[in-house]
Amino acid sequence: MKLNERGLLVVLSGPSGVGKGTVRKALFDEYGKNLTYSISMTTRPMRPGEVNGKDYYFVTEDEFKKKIMEGGFLEYNYFCGNYYGTPMDEVEKALNSGKELILEIEVNGCRQVKEKMLDAVTIFIVPPSREALYERLKHRGTESDYQIQERINKANAEFGLAYQYDYIVVNDDVNNAADRISAIIRAEHARTRRSIYKYYELLGDEEDEQK
Amino acid sequence: MKLNERGLLVVLSGPSGVGKGTVRKALFDEYGKNLTYSISMTTRPMRPGEVNGKDYYFVTEDEFKKKIMEGGFLEYNYFCGNYYGTPMDEVEKALNSGKELILEIEVNGCRQVKEKMLDAVTIFIVPPSREALYERLKHRGTESDYQIQERINKANAEFGLAYQYDYIVVNDDVNNAADRISAIIRAEHARTRRSIYKYYELLGDEEDEQK
Repeated sequence: MKLNERGLLVVLSGPSGVGKGTVRKALFDEYGKNLTYSISMTTRPMRPGEVNGKDYYFVTEDEFKKKIMEGGFLEYNYFCGNYYGTPMDEVEKALNSGKELILEIEVNGCRQVKEKMLDAVTIFIVPPSREALYERLKHRGTESDYQIQERINKANAEFGLAYQYDYIVVNDDVNNAADRISAIIRAEHARTRRSIYKYYELLGDEEDEQK
Repeated sequence: MKLNERGLLVVLSGPSGVGKGTVRKALFDEYGKNLTYSISMTTRPMRPGEVNGKDYYFVTEDEFKKKIMEGGFLEYNYFCGNYYGTPMDEVEKALNSGKELILEIEVNGCRQVKEKMLDAVTIFIVPPSREALYERLKHRGTESDYQIQERINKANAEFGLAYQYDYIVVNDDVNNAADRISAIIRAEHARTRRSIYKYYELLGDEEDEQK
């Protein structure tokens, strides 16, 4: 029996190359029925095969900026000439459904999320060692030495941001990491600040029953 | 891979009659290899078959009071003319072994524990409804109506103390409750404040490696 019925907003982040996407996929494969995701909004052009409202909400830069001004994003980013953001109304819709909303974001998005949603559960995924992540970046194979060094530098700058998160989960084994995230979700539902209203409701009115 | 290697102090409590002992037993049956308990100290006389240092540490009232004065208890209680307490050194020994120390205590002990061990994880076990607990108390069968009413009154007074705890777990099904507690333990190990030192250690010295 779960006292808290509202879904949790769970933020997955971590340094570049740590395998956030793989961990998220393992989490959905294993525990998908209670999880959901939200559709992001972007100003980048639609690619062949993409569907508006499914892959992304595709909007113009003016529309995006208007939404920023209205405070309509949980978090947003500007990357390679385009905006990407998580619309606030999508988040609310997902959480009211009672499912956990899993959000995979860049490390710099975490602070934005915490400002808007104090109750978010933030998880920083880390490699078992610095070298393990370097190896991963080197063996992607599609990038030049310069690009690899750029990504290593980026990861090095991001390693230090762990302290901003609620939890640190090591991605030594992807299923192990997914299991630990699932345990975190279960535990967070039982947190007193999330459970206590329902608990009081469940007890009914003490005075009345005592008579 | 677990970043925090020190055991956790996990306090199980809840209103009289909620089934703390049964939940604890289910927890040990299922996850016992990572769990441990500590031996309490008491001033009550040893009963036939009991062993000093196994069932309890049996001491005189003077010895017990001396230990109270020295701050030697994590928590202690006076009940039906006898003292009962959890010696601090037993707690340290258990936690340093890397196992989780599961402590089942009365609701009034929680505040004492939090004062001594800020890092304790406190869990309040609750019945699925007020009536479920009353039924349980009535059907124990060994007590008079007066004793039952006394216990109901005690439980009613204790229900309201949930807010002092970190987590609220419903004992609707004992295995379900034990599983949720196990998830809480896993999650708490991943908390940033417990993991971050080991994480920095794991990364090594950033400046050195960057050269």
